[in-house]
Amino acid sequence: MNIKTYLPILDWGSRYNRQTLTSDLIAAIIVTIMLIPQSLAYALLAGLPPEVGLYASILPLIAYAIFGTSSALAVGPVAVVSLMTATAVGRLAAEGSADYASAAIILAMLSGLMLALMGLFRLGFVANFLSHPVIAGFITASGIIIATSQVGGLLGIKTEGHTMPELVMSIVTHLGQVNFHTLAVGLVALASLLWIRLDLKNWLARFGVPKGVATIIVRAGPVLVVFLTMAWSVLMDLGGKGVSLVGQVPQGLPMLSLPSFSLDTVQQLAVPALIISIVGFVESISVAQTLAAKRRERISPNQELIGLGASNIAASLGGGYPVTGGFARSVVNFDAGAATPAAGAFTAIGIAGATLLLTPFLAILPKATLSATIVIAVLTLVDFSILRRAWSYSKADFVAVASTLAGTLLLGVEIGIALGVGASILIFLYRSSQPHAAVVGLVPGTEHYRNIKRHQVETVPGVLSIRVDESLYFANARYLEDLVINQVTANAGLTDVVLMCSAVNAIDMSALESLEAIEHRLKDLGVRLHLSEVKGPVMDKLKRSDFLENLSGQVYLSQHQAMTAIKCSLSGQGRSLDPPTGLAAQ
Amino acid sequence: MNIKTYLPILDWGSRYNRQTLTSDLIAAIIVTIMLIPQSLAYALLAGLPPEVGLYASILPLIAYAIFGTSSALAVGPVAVVSLMTATAVGRLAAEGSADYASAAIILAMLSGLMLALMGLFRLGFVANFLSHPVIAGFITASGIIIATSQVGGLLGIKTEGHTMPELVMSIVTHLGQVNFHTLAVGLVALASLLWIRLDLKNWLARFGVPKGVATIIVRAGPVLVVFLTMAWSVLMDLGGKGVSLVGQVPQGLPMLSLPSFSLDTVQQLAVPALIISIVGFVESISVAQTLAAKRRERISPNQELIGLGASNIAASLGGGYPVTGGFARSVVNFDAGAATPAAGAFTAIGIAGATLLLTPFLAILPKATLSATIVIAVLTLVDFSILRRAWSYSKADFVAVASTLAGTLLLGVEIGIALGVGASILIFLYRSSQPHAAVVGLVPGTEHYRNIKRHQVETVPGVLSIRVDESLYFANARYLEDLVINQVTANAGLTDVVLMCSAVNAIDMSALESLEAIEHRLKDLGVRLHLSEVKGPVMDKLKRSDFLENLSGQVYLSQHQAMTAIKCSLSGQGRSLDPPTGLAAQ
Repeated sequence: MNIKTYLPILDWGSRYNRQTLTSDLIAAIIVTIMLIPQSLAYALLAGLPPEVGLYASILPLIAYAIFGTSSALAVGPVAVVSLMTATAVGRLAAEGSADYASAAIILAMLSGLMLALMGLFRLGFVANFLSHPVIAGFITASGIIIATSQVGGLLGIKTEGHTMPELVMSIVTHLGQVNFHTLAVGLVALASLLWIRLDLKNWLARFGVPKGVATIIVRAGPVLVVFLTMAWSVLMDLGGKGVSLVGQVPQGLPMLSLPSFSLDTVQQLAVPALIISIVGFVESISVAQTLAAKRRERISPNQELIGLGASNIAASLGGGYPVTGGFARSVVNFDAGAATPAAGAFTAIGIAGATLLLTPFLAILPKATLSATIVIAVLTLVDFSILRRAWSYSKADFVAVASTLAGTLLLGVEIGIALGVGASILIFLYRSSQPHAAVVGLVPGTEHYRNIKRHQVETVPGVLSIRVDESLYFANARYLEDLVINQVTANAGLTDVVLMCSAVNAIDMSALESLEAIEHRLKDLGVRLHLSEVKGPVMDKLKRSDFLENLSGQVYLSQHQAMTAIKCSLSGQGRSLDPPTGLAAQ
Repeated sequence: MNIKTYLPILDWGSRYNRQTLTSDLIAAIIVTIMLIPQSLAYALLAGLPPEVGLYASILPLIAYAIFGTSSALAVGPVAVVSLMTATAVGRLAAEGSADYASAAIILAMLSGLMLALMGLFRLGFVANFLSHPVIAGFITASGIIIATSQVGGLLGIKTEGHTMPELVMSIVTHLGQVNFHTLAVGLVALASLLWIRLDLKNWLARFGVPKGVATIIVRAGPVLVVFLTMAWSVLMDLGGKGVSLVGQVPQGLPMLSLPSFSLDTVQQLAVPALIISIVGFVESISVAQTLAAKRRERISPNQELIGLGASNIAASLGGGYPVTGGFARSVVNFDAGAATPAAGAFTAIGIAGATLLLTPFLAILPKATLSATIVIAVLTLVDFSILRRAWSYSKADFVAVASTLAGTLLLGVEIGIALGVGASILIFLYRSSQPHAAVVGLVPGTEHYRNIKRHQVETVPGVLSIRVDESLYFANARYLEDLVINQVTANAGLTDVVLMCSAVNAIDMSALESLEAIEHRLKDLGVRLHLSEVKGPVMDKLKRSDFLENLSGQVYLSQHQAMTAIKCSLSGQGRSLDPPTGLAAQ
């Protein structure tokens, strides 16, 4: 075990040079500018004071730089995890209370410990059980909930809830209290951000601004909107007109501190922390692998778990809340040329500097600006095309997407994702419990055997070849028995049945007992049972039981050898039912 | 939809004649004699008054005769379900209280409704998720718990608990209070029952008793032990010496009545009722199918659910508790020649008569006799050989058995079976998430391709054929990507990769996206991707996506055709990487 496996910084650090330093510094500046308004906004989304978003963008980035393996991943507060934090912590304490903030800190610590342990025990594969359709459905539903949750902020009304019915009801009942100054700020911020994102680059190009400079201006756009609405706030005394401002926040950087745990809080946050960990990991690893593939780099999923675990522990110690690798900012980091994880550490220094400089001025920032920032950021998350694609490709996948989407919208993020994972696993189990099977025959001119219903094939009278398209295990063991016996009773005059096992990847004890039952019943009917194309690992297991010794027929290497041998025995010996002795080599 | 499907009695009833009547009557008499002591004893095991066991052996048998499909299945109280009833109801009320008895009645109603609904919605397949090893482990553990729970009854001490630690602790702490009169009755009953079971038949044979008569005497043996200990009780005034007797019970038959439901009780009993339903169904259907196979009859699993559902609803209306088809009594019923479900209805009449005759005398029966009856009955359930067989066949199956066994013994029946089912599903998912894969080559002299590590095969330079032994789905989609890319990077100079899909029984959306990612990355590396032996249903799905249109290689019917065509293209065109157009016919 190499220490560099667990501390990737020792690996890339030893090759660090002036060129990578320059690339990393440039990327760090661009990501810092992008991250400032996002950090403030996502903290608000999580129900936390905005400065907590900045705190969560300092130490976690340094921790990831030490333990992470992606050169481009930018860690910090992200939309979906912020929403999940609000949902989890909102059950324990009232928003704005000291308990609320400390619960978020404990949540980050729990999530960090879980991620790190999963990494140490190499449990990264657990994330594979979040299927692509489930993730797509979940992200879209989260985007919708997040955007809706910010409508209140844009209208200057107080809304509550983390599901669509709650949020819509909350907005409708408070519609009478709309503050039109807030609405004005919100709409202007929304319009400016949208224009910056969609049109500013072309507009700058028309004025002859070089492309590189234009890109930086576009990235800095959201910060400009923050300053613009701050100025508006001061000049028009928006605070005096009932517009909700961020208000006084602690100056400077937070002290390092260990959160104080109560067993009760830990118990209540354990399941949400696990879900946040897995969702955060999946989001992060997908980005990291996509970007790594473009540069032909390798990402180690288990080390990524340790890197994200360290980031979340750092977030907890630094007074933040759960973080993960964000999609948009990682792409920006990548495009800006980040060469090593050091870019993240430099971003952390940038955010720390900004925190020192900005916190005195945050008091006058209208919260509507942050709501607008969130809405624009999450618009890209919403993508209903997955529903159409899943529908046309497979109804099973569609059920998984639809239940995740509906569950998340109507019942909340945790139940939604649990429903999606549960539905995909149940569908998989259900389908494998009722496997496809085909009676097969020889494709003329080849030694290849295919489904008699789909292909023009040749069969041999008296011999039935069945190919079962599934591993044989407890859930389909009884089904297999019925299938074979029904096929045999439907075909009078049979002497031999060949079970073609090319698609049988495992045979567990339940299925073995079913095979024995099939063998017994066929023997009673005077029919021999043969196996063909049994895979090596399956054959290894069968040899440990006495099934093969009692088998009335033989095991053949290929279906073609089976048919050749059986045809030969039928024509040579008439309808002899003497069991042949010995087994063919697997 | 034929009404005879739901009312099998209309089918066999129309063919009923004098001969079947005679057979059924003889079987009914033998089963009645066997069922009397068992019914009393199992009610005691369930923590209910003994007469409830008799009530549960009347109406349910008539209901099954109307709705059931097995000609030999004998329904009634059974050991395992009685233990599960005690566990479930014991959480809600104190043994002996009116609430306890009414909770058992509600449990039967819930279980009956669940079974009937599962039958109507054709959900019989759910039972397949109880694998053979899990059932074996569960039955053995239940047998041990049941036997241990009766030790108190044999010693004349009061014990509590439904898990081994609770029971053993309870026995140990009360050891000082052993009543030696009770112990004497218990040991005599135990010894007599054991002797009747093991030796009586041979002994009667030595005295020249005909075999048929001897069989009936052996079956009646337990009833004789009941009468013997009743006489002992009266003659020696055992009640006055502190021996626990059954005591006064209501005379006659119970009135039909609808249980009074409280929502709270229903909520607390719902999960236990579901587990009892599934376990009871699995026990019953296994017996029914085993016996049906011997007579070449067919059992309809979904109609069996309706039959058992009706039985349990009848049990509830008749003041009983959950019932199911019992193994031992069904075998006796079968051996005695039961020809139709009417045998069960005649048994019900027999038990009703016995109830009227017996209840006045039950007061003097020592409970130790019933404890001895239970211990002897459950001895056959305990079978540790499953552990050894599972260990030698497959470690995965062993884990499932061992966790069911240990979970049931230590944590109780419900947690035990849930652990077993959970473990078997998780193991299945885990294994299919890390599938076996093989690089394959041609077996010389055939058109058959096998693992290069296990067989002497021929390969073609520049062409890599990989066979993945699993359906491709979300849990292994990422694994597949890593596998193919790692194989390709480890083999320099590749021009073609063939994915042999003979063992791929499904490709879900997540796996489709992984295939697309593989295709992209191989294209970047200048390697063509081909598929071979794609099954019909999988091909149908792939055609609904645009994967095949973008594929750089082709889809071949067989692996041999793929290799022949690729070899030809390599030698004919040099190292041409032009993607061929069009797709081979599947």
